Amino acid sequence: MAVTLAELARRFQGRVRGNPELVIERVAPLESAGPQDIAYLSDKKYFPVLANTAAGVVILSESDASEYGGCALIVTDPHLCFARIAQWLHPYPVFTPGTHPTAVINSDSRIAKTAWVGPHSVVEDGVEIGDDVYVGPGCFIGNHVTIGARSRLVGHVSIGDRCSIGEDCLLHPGAVIGSDGFGYARNGEQWQKVPQLGRVIIGSNVEIGANTTIDRGALNDTVIGNGVKLDNQIQIAHNVHIGDNTAIAACVGIAGSTRIGKRCTLGGQAGITGHLDIADDVHITAGSLVTSSIKQAGAYSSSLKAEPAEKWRRNAARLHHLDEMARRLTKLEEKLQQQSEEHEN
Amino acid sequence: MAVTLAELARRFQGRVRGNPELVIERVAPLESAGPQDIAYLSDKKYFPVLANTAAGVVILSESDASEYGGCALIVTDPHLCFARIAQWLHPYPVFTPGTHPTAVINSDSRIAKTAWVGPHSVVEDGVEIGDDVYVGPGCFIGNHVTIGARSRLVGHVSIGDRCSIGEDCLLHPGAVIGSDGFGYARNGEQWQKVPQLGRVIIGSNVEIGANTTIDRGALNDTVIGNGVKLDNQIQIAHNVHIGDNTAIAACVGIAGSTRIGKRCTLGGQAGITGHLDIADDVHITAGSLVTSSIKQAGAYSSSLKAEPAEKWRRNAARLHHLDEMARRLTKLEEKLQQQSEEHEN
Amino acid sequence: MAVTLAELARRFQGRVRGNPELVIERVAPLESAGPQDIAYLSDKKYFPVLANTAAGVVILSESDASEYGGCALIVTDPHLCFARIAQWLHPYPVFTPGTHPTAVINSDSRIAKTAWVGPHSVVEDGVEIGDDVYVGPGCFIGNHVTIGARSRLVGHVSIGDRCSIGEDCLLHPGAVIGSDGFGYARNGEQWQKVPQLGRVIIGSNVEIGANTTIDRGALNDTVIGNGVKLDNQIQIAHNVHIGDNTAIAACVGIAGSTRIGKRCTLGGQAGITGHLDIADDVHITAGSLVTSSIKQAGAYSSSLKAEPAEKWRRNAARLHHLDEMARRLTKLEEKLQQQSEEHEN
Repeated sequence: MAVTLAELARRFQGRVRGNPELVIERVAPLESAGPQDIAYLSDKKYFPVLANTAAGVVILSESDASEYGGCALIVTDPHLCFARIAQWLHPYPVFTPGTHPTAVINSDSRIAKTAWVGPHSVVEDGVEIGDDVYVGPGCFIGNHVTIGARSRLVGHVSIGDRCSIGEDCLLHPGAVIGSDGFGYARNGEQWQKVPQLGRVIIGSNVEIGANTTIDRGALNDTVIGNGVKLDNQIQIAHNVHIGDNTAIAACVGIAGSTRIGKRCTLGGQAGITGHLDIADDVHITAGSLVTSSIKQAGAYSSSLKAEPAEKWRRNAARLHHLDEMARRLTKLEEKLQQQSEEHEN
Repeated sequence: MAVTLAELARRFQGRVRGNPELVIERVAPLESAGPQDIAYLSDKKYFPVLANTAAGVVILSESDASEYGGCALIVTDPHLCFARIAQWLHPYPVFTPGTHPTAVINSDSRIAKTAWVGPHSVVEDGVEIGDDVYVGPGCFIGNHVTIGARSRLVGHVSIGDRCSIGEDCLLHPGAVIGSDGFGYARNGEQWQKVPQLGRVIIGSNVEIGANTTIDRGALNDTVIGNGVKLDNQIQIAHNVHIGDNTAIAACVGIAGSTRIGKRCTLGGQAGITGHLDIADDVHITAGSLVTSSIKQAGAYSSSLKAEPAEKWRRNAARLHHLDEMARRLTKLEEKLQQQSEEHEN
Repeated sequence: MAVTLAELARRFQGRVRGNPELVIERVAPLESAGPQDIAYLSDKKYFPVLANTAAGVVILSESDASEYGGCALIVTDPHLCFARIAQWLHPYPVFTPGTHPTAVINSDSRIAKTAWVGPHSVVEDGVEIGDDVYVGPGCFIGNHVTIGARSRLVGHVSIGDRCSIGEDCLLHPGAVIGSDGFGYARNGEQWQKVPQLGRVIIGSNVEIGANTTIDRGALNDTVIGNGVKLDNQIQIAHNVHIGDNTAIAACVGIAGSTRIGKRCTLGGQAGITGHLDIADDVHITAGSLVTSSIKQAGAYSSSLKAEPAEKWRRNAARLHHLDEMARRLTKLEEKLQQQSEEHEN
């Protein structure tokens, strides 16, 4: 796509500094951008890179604009503006609607005329696929699944019976929606499976990363709110609810029936145990484990950072005697207190 | 399915209180159950919900039965009874045996007449698939694999050459059985692959969650006992043995050659390093790391729980000086002891 | 395959002790090897097993050779020699080149005449597949992907548009290469997707485990060096660089833009946060979290080891008051110091 700087400024509410007729074709990183590229300054620490960039245009904030002499698009939020321009200049490839001859599609399903179902995908009974939906190769869409308009299944996505995907969602390869929750009743030494009869209900504008798994509810549903962003390899157990616009980094595990609020962020490899309530606007650092409900917005952590192993081993060994250390400390305090008192008397 | 309360009581060894001719069609949660639904009380804290339920029947223990005036099925273990009734009222959909025309099946394989192989599945050479087995869409069954009667591969399951699945197993999408173990010999700066020649042998009545991976043994086999339940996104390395009826929650990793006993439970995101022996009836809490063998049944833990990040940062920083703190504490004790002795003299 | 011991010695630079005409057919573990098998001693603790082995030949180091009276292949590095012999005696099955009739292949792609594309695989536009490449069943190869000679995609592998795989690579089922990185700009309460326009570039002789995911770069590329070994269920975020011959165990997560040096090893479930630089020859223990750059080669750790839960609970509880404990300790030291001074005066 090719567009003038003036047109970009008009569409994305920026102010042009320099030649408005300059033609821009793509986004690029500051350090390697060329004369037909638009770049942006992500951090003031890149001022030296900015000084040497060959980018046709750089997106800058008002306050950084004076640091650069070249052609600029001056906006309130350069990162956000860059994201929008990038999406506009680099849209998903256009597809011809229809169904690939190798797709296996139950005649009972309703697929919008503007949708695409790719090779080797399977669409079962009673499925509804909305306008402009793209189902890539090798997907499995179970009975009575609904997929909202403009959603995109990149390929190798599996969606179990009766689950529902909202509009404008993006699901990456290996995502599994609607696998059984992990529910059993003890039966002596054995485990008796509790059938998982609920669904997964996914809102609109949700992104689900590669190999992320979301289990169906046991009796009620697992619910993912609008605008939720899930990275790769996340596990979401049965009956979990995730509030709107919460973003979860890779490898996080959330155990059954936990409810997470809106606008939360969970760092990579964080874990949240089951049956908890996490308030809105809670932020969990990478690698932390949450084992009780959180009522107050804010940042929470339990992660430890690596240090040289020999040093760590000595510190960690002491941790395994910390209770004893605490008792010894208290005893010393008492002893000293006693001495002071004796001394005074 | 529709069944009278009397029939449920007969099949599942309960006592009816109320109308034995009441017809039940499905299970439902206490709070949303209707007159044709059977629900159960999972915890005494739901007594208020019980009081207001519209469920046709509630499964109750003898001791809780007096808390409820409505129609009840009184049993020894309501949770177990509920699981069984749910499974009986909500069986897997019946399938017509055969093979989908798009399945690619080696003529050398033996597939029971009562089994189903779904669309786009691939069954290689010398495979044996037992009675009433269901192989969903997009599965890959490698050479000389055997799958026992009534096992169910939901779809998108991959089983490598020569692996064996017992009877009544349930494998969810994205499960990979029989990938290579991670074995290399050092060759200067490079790694020389050690061919992984063993198999994965899975017992009967095993459930394997979505995107769980089980590597084949290097020379000997990886072995999963009967009744083992594996949640999603678990990694089981080569030559691991897992004892009967052990249940493992999501995102657990078990390193090579470790042996885990019977009836163990591993919490989510727990890790177990390689070449360990874990006794029967060991329970590991979520997020814990086991780095040495465990000989005694019981609960083990090394996980920390998140607290407000600012507070945590201060505590964690001290941990990195704990060895020094311990030395200072000992020094203080010695000093005080010396003082006491001097004082006495 | 059948080969004489003399031939093995010649090929793999060993010295024969015993009958050079002995015919060997396969590798086997010391404890179960038979007269046509070659085994090796992995550790001196297995001397008792060695004494009783029925193996036709045992691979031994010069120093261990005297512990065994039977037929031996004496080499400098028995483990490495065993790995090479195993690979030579147990090669991948030979395949007939071509494309399975159910594979969907864009006419625009170039597939070497000696390559194989398996059933239900999809090869899109402009793909280049090199000599002797094996693409197993159910793979997806996106537009303009290149795959180097002799690489092997076991099956169910997904490679996104424009990614590149080197020569002699091995990719296991469920691996996803080139999914979108997790990049968003804040837009009020919502997240605006930053299009992920980079690629994944994978070197030669790389192994990628089952269900491992590697995201494409945001603007630049994600780069995996030559000889890198990735176990199962690893997550590698956008713009990560991994140096040659680094080996990463299962369930590790590496956040965006981090650079890892050469010859590093990362233990299972380790995590590395984003935008870090990790030097060459760094070793991270299992379950550790790295949150700052590491400039010096060596071992690093932050993991804790499980102990009986009751004991652990007491120690961990104290950790949440460690800052306070440290302050009390300092206060005691000061008090005692003061006393000493008073005493002296």
